[in-house]
Amino acid sequence: MFKKILVANRGEIAVRVIRACKEMGIQTVAVFSEADRDALHVKMADESVLIGPASSLKSYLNVSNIIRAAEQTRADAIHPGYGFLSENAGFARICESSGLTFIGPPPEAIEIMGDKAKARQKMIEAGVPVVPGSQAVMLDEETAEALGEEIGYPLLIKASAGGGGRGMRIAQNVAELNQAVQNAQKEAQMFFGNPEIYLEKYMETVRHIEFQILGDKHGNIVHLGERDCSLQRRNQKLLEEAPASTLTPELRAEMGLAAVEAAKSVGYSSAGTVEFILDQSGRFYFIEMNTRIQVEHPVTELVTGIDLVKEQIRIAAGKSLGFRQEDIRISGWAIECRINAENTEKNFMPSPGTIGIYREPQGTGVRVDSSACEGYCLSPYYDSLIGKLIVWGANRHEAIQRLERALKEYKIEGVPTTIPFHLKVITNPAYIRGEVHTDFIERWM
Amino acid sequence: MFKKILVANRGEIAVRVIRACKEMGIQTVAVFSEADRDALHVKMADESVLIGPASSLKSYLNVSNIIRAAEQTRADAIHPGYGFLSENAGFARICESSGLTFIGPPPEAIEIMGDKAKARQKMIEAGVPVVPGSQAVMLDEETAEALGEEIGYPLLIKASAGGGGRGMRIAQNVAELNQAVQNAQKEAQMFFGNPEIYLEKYMETVRHIEFQILGDKHGNIVHLGERDCSLQRRNQKLLEEAPASTLTPELRAEMGLAAVEAAKSVGYSSAGTVEFILDQSGRFYFIEMNTRIQVEHPVTELVTGIDLVKEQIRIAAGKSLGFRQEDIRISGWAIECRINAENTEKNFMPSPGTIGIYREPQGTGVRVDSSACEGYCLSPYYDSLIGKLIVWGANRHEAIQRLERALKEYKIEGVPTTIPFHLKVITNPAYIRGEVHTDFIERWM
Repeated sequence: MFKKILVANRGEIAVRVIRACKEMGIQTVAVFSEADRDALHVKMADESVLIGPASSLKSYLNVSNIIRAAEQTRADAIHPGYGFLSENAGFARICESSGLTFIGPPPEAIEIMGDKAKARQKMIEAGVPVVPGSQAVMLDEETAEALGEEIGYPLLIKASAGGGGRGMRIAQNVAELNQAVQNAQKEAQMFFGNPEIYLEKYMETVRHIEFQILGDKHGNIVHLGERDCSLQRRNQKLLEEAPASTLTPELRAEMGLAAVEAAKSVGYSSAGTVEFILDQSGRFYFIEMNTRIQVEHPVTELVTGIDLVKEQIRIAAGKSLGFRQEDIRISGWAIECRINAENTEKNFMPSPGTIGIYREPQGTGVRVDSSACEGYCLSPYYDSLIGKLIVWGANRHEAIQRLERALKEYKIEGVPTTIPFHLKVITNPAYIRGEVHTDFIERWM
Repeated sequence: MFKKILVANRGEIAVRVIRACKEMGIQTVAVFSEADRDALHVKMADESVLIGPASSLKSYLNVSNIIRAAEQTRADAIHPGYGFLSENAGFARICESSGLTFIGPPPEAIEIMGDKAKARQKMIEAGVPVVPGSQAVMLDEETAEALGEEIGYPLLIKASAGGGGRGMRIAQNVAELNQAVQNAQKEAQMFFGNPEIYLEKYMETVRHIEFQILGDKHGNIVHLGERDCSLQRRNQKLLEEAPASTLTPELRAEMGLAAVEAAKSVGYSSAGTVEFILDQSGRFYFIEMNTRIQVEHPVTELVTGIDLVKEQIRIAAGKSLGFRQEDIRISGWAIECRINAENTEKNFMPSPGTIGIYREPQGTGVRVDSSACEGYCLSPYYDSLIGKLIVWGANRHEAIQRLERALKEYKIEGVPTTIPFHLKVITNPAYIRGEVHTDFIERWM
């Protein structure tokens, strides 16, 4: 087992990884930017290294400073968390060539899944259903129109190298197509340095269902059930739950198998997430695979009892999975709310600032993953996540009741938060009935 | 269902009950003494009523003021928590005669189980094994010596009306017997107003194993598995876990059945705990039944997923149990540490005072039930409990690792706490091996 792990991240996920290491008796190294000198992850780690100024590009994305910090502190391995360098195949390769274990999947798997068009092709070969659409191209007007006719409207135009909703456009009809294609290409070039785009059929009233995967380096891959992340705003997840109320045991088994096949087709190991959309007739389509731990991983932890970060570490150290598919039991219901410092009345505008009073909810079935505290300063340099509130209940009804109690108990002053918004969502009768699709916010809120 | 519940308690258990009520959509009334004006349970409740000065006798034990508060606020029911009036049959009767539902067992069951000697007799009739011993009496020297010869030394002398180690003495041999009997009688008279005592064989290297019971008002009674509370100091529990590492499935079933029989024999309903001692040859003996929710109830909640306080409320409202014995599943491992403001170097002397820095541990598998916060003033009028740290792990090994991490993460300044002591206990190889008996502290610490 590793003696010392460097955590190449900040905020709640750095704290999360450090906690897992402490429970495993592994020493930890935090890295931090000048803006994060007093951050919780720095205080909790055994050692810490300043890696640059506040700007992410010069600190948390600064590969050479991070590698140097690992070498200086004689770390054995690097955990990238999510975001930043977590899906950067080049970084994973540099770790390995520097004699550091990258706690994540093989670089080849990151690479294939990072290229949405390549991943799509790979899935078709593996027999995993994909959304009707085109291969990646630089489209001229004529080809785009022909493809549009073939696939049918509305159409989604996506950046091949994309993610997080960037470089994505919708065309409701042929009249909107050309402009949408041009805008998507421009944005794709700007954000990802690659103008390649592809077209997909846009499905409106669908669910976003993703499967948690765990694979070891010996070819064993299992899934840990699904998460329903349909509650999104502009492709940003707001609230996630497990299991999904809409899945029958048969459909769960079928989708789980497809997720495992997807992971196998790219020689996957470590934790990963295979994302599908599920239409109202029960057909599902692969969208993408996230080759890292996800923000919403705790809901899976709460219903399976499996600590995903510890599993990542064990797998990276070469251990075999300690369980088979038939050993995984889903028990009860878990829901996560992302608590952001955002002004939900003003288009969810990030509202960094200093937190005054801060009191987390507690008690039965309540977990908070956060790096905040009283006096904590949310920096405009980073995302606006204050913490994740995750609840467990014996069933969905109890989980919702507990979530409402815990949201009301969460006291954060000094910055606006998404708590009032979440309270509106979870007390909405459509949410309570489980009628949650990706257009929920537009339709109901 | 009740519309409004008055919580006749303070501290973490009052907060615990209020949280359950909130999740069930039930209004809450807090009662408080002058010392608790700013307490968390007062802030969290929908309404609150001052019931007297700091002294428990004049506030939390003040029956007429509590009943009046319930009447003034038009509460439907009273939850007594643990301690204070929770095992007072007279209070339960006054509640009912005032038209208030007492959230607990029938007064008759409280009464029988509150009289240790009567309970012992009842258990013998019900076929539940009891520790070899005598019936309750006022003993003269001669009778005591004859009984001592019959039962065998060492002998435990216990107050019939006792509890919490009060009125309890050990006699290692006949020479110590007379003095021990006199002291026990004197203390029993002083604390319980009843000098009756009884003798039991004293067993040294035993485990304290207790079964959680839930019974409804329709005759259904189930057990929710056991807790191992062997880690005690002077009959005060310090750390509790579930399940008990020593029980085979067969022994668990046998003891569970005996616990259910014990509860049935007194017409029990609500949550309750049947306590046994288990000797090294696997024989078990009834000690007593606690007719209330217990301090250590969260470990059972974490391994069963059942919210015991909500069940108490549902049962009191006349609902049937929503599960049968075969539906109860024990999953993983849970351990609770009682975090007290005590000086463990000075004989665990309670050390009330004002808490400075206060930061609770968080993350996967960690729960804290507490009413403390920064600036919280622990009053000398009440017990020294700051909070309960409860962890869940997939197995005992993970639970212990997590507990160590969480104990180290718990920051409390301003008062001495039992945290360093707990860290010593759980890193002790004998504890890790599961060799925990009621003499653990004397033997290992």
